Formats: sequence, structure tokens, C-alpha cells
Amino acid sequence: MKRIVPPTGIDRRTLLAALATAPALPQLLIPTTARAQGQGVPLASWNDGPAKQTIVDFVRATTQQQGSPGFVPPEERIATFDQDGTLWVEHPIYSQVVYCLDRVPAVVAQKPELKDVAPFKTVLSGNREEIAKLSLHDLEEILFATLTGMSVDEFEAEANKWLASAKHPRWNRLYTDLTYQPMREVLQYLRANGYKTYIVTGGGQDFVRVYSQRVYGIPPEQVVGTAAGTKYGYDKDGKPFLTKEPKLLLNDNDAGKPEGIHLMIGRRPYAAFGNSTGDREMLEYTGAGAGARLKVLLLHDDAAREYAYGPAQGLPDTRVGTFTQGLFDEAKAKGWTIISMKQDWKRVFAFE
Amino acid sequence: MKRIVPPTGIDRRTLLAALATAPALPQLLIPTTARAQGQGVPLASWNDGPAKQTIVDFVRATTQQQGSPGFVPPEERIATFDQDGTLWVEHPIYSQVVYCLDRVPAVVAQKPELKDVAPFKTVLSGNREEIAKLSLHDLEEILFATLTGMSVDEFEAEANKWLASAKHPRWNRLYTDLTYQPMREVLQYLRANGYKTYIVTGGGQDFVRVYSQRVYGIPPEQVVGTAAGTKYGYDKDGKPFLTKEPKLLLNDNDAGKPEGIHLMIGRRPYAAFGNSTGDREMLEYTGAGAGARLKVLLLHDDAAREYAYGPAQGLPDTRVGTFTQGLFDEAKAKGWTIISMKQDWKRVFAFE
Repeated sequence: MKRIVPPTGIDRRTLLAALATAPALPQLLIPTTARAQGQGVPLASWNDGPAKQTIVDFVRATTQQQGSPGFVPPEERIATFDQDGTLWVEHPIYSQVVYCLDRVPAVVAQKPELKDVAPFKTVLSGNREEIAKLSLHDLEEILFATLTGMSVDEFEAEANKWLASAKHPRWNRLYTDLTYQPMREVLQYLRANGYKTYIVTGGGQDFVRVYSQRVYGIPPEQVVGTAAGTKYGYDKDGKPFLTKEPKLLLNDNDAGKPEGIHLMIGRRPYAAFGNSTGDREMLEYTGAGAGARLKVLLLHDDAAREYAYGPAQGLPDTRVGTFTQGLFDEAKAKGWTIISMKQDWKRVFAFE
Repeated sequence: MKRIVPPTGIDRRTLLAALATAPALPQLLIPTTARAQGQGVPLASWNDGPAKQTIVDFVRATTQQQGSPGFVPPEERIATFDQDGTLWVEHPIYSQVVYCLDRVPAVVAQKPELKDVAPFKTVLSGNREEIAKLSLHDLEEILFATLTGMSVDEFEAEANKWLASAKHPRWNRLYTDLTYQPMREVLQYLRANGYKTYIVTGGGQDFVRVYSQRVYGIPPEQVVGTAAGTKYGYDKDGKPFLTKEPKLLLNDNDAGKPEGIHLMIGRRPYAAFGNSTGDREMLEYTGAGAGARLKVLLLHDDAAREYAYGPAQGLPDTRVGTFTQGLFDEAKAKGWTIISMKQDWKRVFAFE
């Protein structure tokens, strides 16, 4: 094991002293290196081991020696992260699906004709066993009914209200508290070394954008997700607004992830993190680029601290976050990095 | 007229001296303020007048006094620019359309069955009068045939080759030389004050991304344009690649501009620049936000140095860049800023 050193040799004190001469200097102008160093040792919640070492080696190889073969110019440093199951808890059910189920009563109040119609009737019954049996098609119908038809501003307000109160049943905490501390440290470490960090999620782009800045430090324009179209129009006072339409533009899962990356970013990532078959093509696409590329999968093998699932480890398969044997074999064959939550992480959540 | 001062009070020499202690410091870490100051006085190619003053006042109001009512936090500083006719010459015909016409022989060589079929036959004839008469539907057919069906890497290589050789007939210069120097200065000035500058163009997103970084300093991920889908697949060696598909995802004109801004950026701009009816909704949407918002239209009224067109000034209407009387009236009624190329710009091109 090599010792972990701060990412650049910059003299932080000298730099901060100079910056202090500009009293109203926007925070933007303070080099990210200085800010990250203030947050302590990089990857502090990681145990020493091959996963941590691979991440550190990649960052060094791509950022430390201009002119070296692996060096990546700052403007090309793109890192992409799946969200559900990679940055935060996805079990027992994606939080956005919980949001949509919770929104059903309000939608039915506005459209009473849905009250006795499946799948809305099932959701309103509150019968958990029946709700768990809803088909993918039923879920899609619920998603479209609860995520479209309102203005983007109304949607943002509703989502914010829900995020401020809804809690995960196991920890009795807000969903936004259930991010993985070690992954937050990876985001910070990459950004401190000039990487632009993106979320590339199968979840709804507009939903994740509501909290990505405050939860992950990732601005809305760096969130790529499953996206529906909007429609421009005017209210009665002639003020323009956008309405969310039930028209799918991008299904940001599987092959949709590299396609979405091309659409929204236009560059191939140098690093990609995922945890399921939905991330396979993103990692393949990342790995197909020249030079050093970091391809990482998170294996949920820690039932005590979080969950254990995925047939790759003989663990139960589930409806969310499938880490199949096929994905495991491809990862091994291609030398992708697999994080074991149980072995590689000192702690899982910041609140622990 | 107030005197124009550098955007912040930062002591540049002290700062640069400190930064010099870090030999391999990525360019990224050098505050944009220092870089912009090295490029001289902001807006040097602008004559004093209301257009320049409005831009300067807007930047001051939104960036200089944290806590003041107009102040915009750095992360929310988004400025969007139409490209054709706003950042570079669009007459007598959009450069991307020239590219597509130039590509027709290569497409026909691969698909000989198109040789005797309209509109390809017309293009191959080289008859300029007939080509000028092609309908919008004909043009769309040519665009799809020449912009889709190849891998994104092949397209990028072809576009780069063309951009390095094709010349505008009037100036006998590369199209990328025909950017407006005063608008380049606006881009720099906004960036020096913490604004993230975006192109929001009716032109092809992939086409503009090929040169946006080197020509405007705008990275590919900050180009929003008319976009078709791609399809993920594998070559015979199992290496993944993306193919450009003839499936329109976003028509980034008119109402498509605010819709595209929501899709790709997810924030309302604070400043928007355009020059035609295709930019109307982008400016309306920008203006509908709270606080100071800059809405600017460029009027082409300078036949001597560039072109004069647009019925708003009794100038001829054309197939490209229509500045109608209706747009002019809306701009006046809403207090939008109109740049007169003839009166407001000391020079038009950098090569002059």
C-alpha cells in the first residue's frame, strides 16, 4: 500500500493568503483543491484495499503529471455515477417510486375518475402486499400520472416538500440522509482533482435535480436521468412556463446510459461507477476509451449495515439493483473494480 | 457613461505569484478573473452606448454585491447564446447546411441508388439556382442523410476535416474565423464574472460541439442544440460505439429552446442572446424569472461590414435569421436590448 497524499503539491497557505486580498471574491474562484483539503484526508471512510487503491492510482495517473501518457487535460475529466444503489440506498424500493405512490391520493383528488381504476385503486387501498405485486406497466402508469401534467415549478415544490418529510422505514431518516459517506468522499476527491462529477441515473432527471446540489454538490446541469419532454406555454397573464409532458425522451438505463451521456455531456467519461446491470453499458462505454479509465461496481454484501442482494454472490435477486452473475463475470474478465460494502467501507452513512 | 472597471478588486500580481508556487497546477485552478484580465479591457470592440451599458450594468448588478437584491449566487449564473447570426455569420446560408450539401457526394457514393433521386440529384447537379429553391422538406431529407447513419466518432472526424478547409465565399475564410469579436468579448466578460456560458442553437448539437471549445471556449457539455438520438452497439471486436440515428429528440428552435434548456441545463438563464424569431421564447423564458435578467437581440443592419436583413428595419426578409416586426415590437414593449451591429460594434471580426 502506498501512502495517500493530498492530490496536488499546491501550497495552500500561500494561495489562501493571496486570495484573502480580494474580500468579495466569489466562492467559485477558490480552487477546489483548497476546499477539499479543508475537509481532511481523502477517502477517510475507506479501508485500505484494492478498491481504494485503484481509485487513488487512477486519480494520480490521470492528474498528476502533465505530459505523462495517462494524463487527462482538466476539461476532459468527466466522472459519472449511477445514483440508486451507488450513491444512496435503493432498497427495499426506489425512493422516487415511494414518492410517486405517496402522490397518488393528490392525483386522484384532482381526477376522481381514477379512484376505482387499477392500479390507482390498489395504491389507495394501502395494501402493501398488493402494491408490491404491481407490474412494471402498472408502475409506469403511476409514474406518468404523478410526474407529468404539472408545471416544472409545481413539481419541484412538491418534490421538495416530500423530501423534507418522507422517511425510510428502516432507519426512520430522510432519504437524503441515506447517502453513502464513502461515495461522497469519492465525489469530493475527484472534484478536488479537477473532475467534473455527473449523476447518470435511471431515475427521473427532474426528481434528482431537486436535491443533487445540496446532497451531493452536483448542480442540476450535471444530472442526466430518465427524462420526459416539457411543453412551453403561457399562463393567463402571458407569463411563460413549462409543463411536464407524458412523452419519454430518454430512458436512462442500460444502453440508454451511454446514449444519454452522449446527448447531455458529449464526452466519454474517464470514470464510471454503478451497481447493477443497468450500469453495464455505461461502464463498457467508459472502458472503451483510450488511456486510463476507471470502471467500478458496488456490491451490496452487507446485510448488517445496509442490505445484501445480487445473485453474483449467491445473494437473493430482487426487483431493484440486479447484480447478476453475468455482470460479475464481465467485470472480472475486463478487470473492473468491485467494491465490497462489507470489506471496503469503514462506515456506510455519515450519521453513524 | 460610467467608467468600465475590471470586474473584481482582486490583486492579480499577488495571486499569480502565489499560484506560481504550484508548478503543475492545472489551468482549471487559475481563477477566471485573472485569465480574463490578461485579455485586456472588457468589451473593447464595443462603442459606448445603451447596449454596452446594459450588459455592463447587468453584470455589475448580479455579481458585485453579495446581499444586494440583484445578486446571483455563482452556481446560478447561466447565460445562453444562440449561435447562427448571434455568435457568427449565418448568411447567405447556415454553415451546417453547406456542410450537409458538401457531404452529399460521399453519401451518394455509398448509396448509389440516391444518385438520380430528388433532392440528391439536384445537389449533385451543382446548379445553385435549383439548390436555392429546395424546400424545407428537401433540406430535412439531406440533413438526415448526411448527419445520421455513421458513428459519432466518424461524424466528428468528417466535420473536423470540413471545418479545416471549407471557406465562406464572401471573405474566403474558414467559417470558424467568422465569429463576431464583440460577442466573443461578451462571452469572456460573463465568464470572468462567474457566468457559465452555453450555446443554445437551432443547429445540430453534435456539429457545434466539434468546434465550440476551441472557437468559443465553450465545452461540448455546454452546447444545447437540435439533437437526434444515438444507438449503442458493438463492432466485430466487441468494442461498443454509438451510431447517429435519424430520430429527432429535440428541435431546438422557438419553444424548443426553453424546452431544451430545461432538459439539458435544468435552470432558467439569467442572460440570453439571440437574433431571430427562433430565439423569442428563450428570451421570454429568461425574462420571466425573478431579479435582473438580460435579454438581448442582435440586429443585422450593417451591409458594409456584414449583412443587413430583417423586416423590422425595413430590410429584406430572408430564409435565415428572421427578425420580424412582431419580434421587434415585443422586444420594445418588454424592454429587451437591441444591438445595432452598425452602431454598437467598433469592429465585427477579429481579423479586421
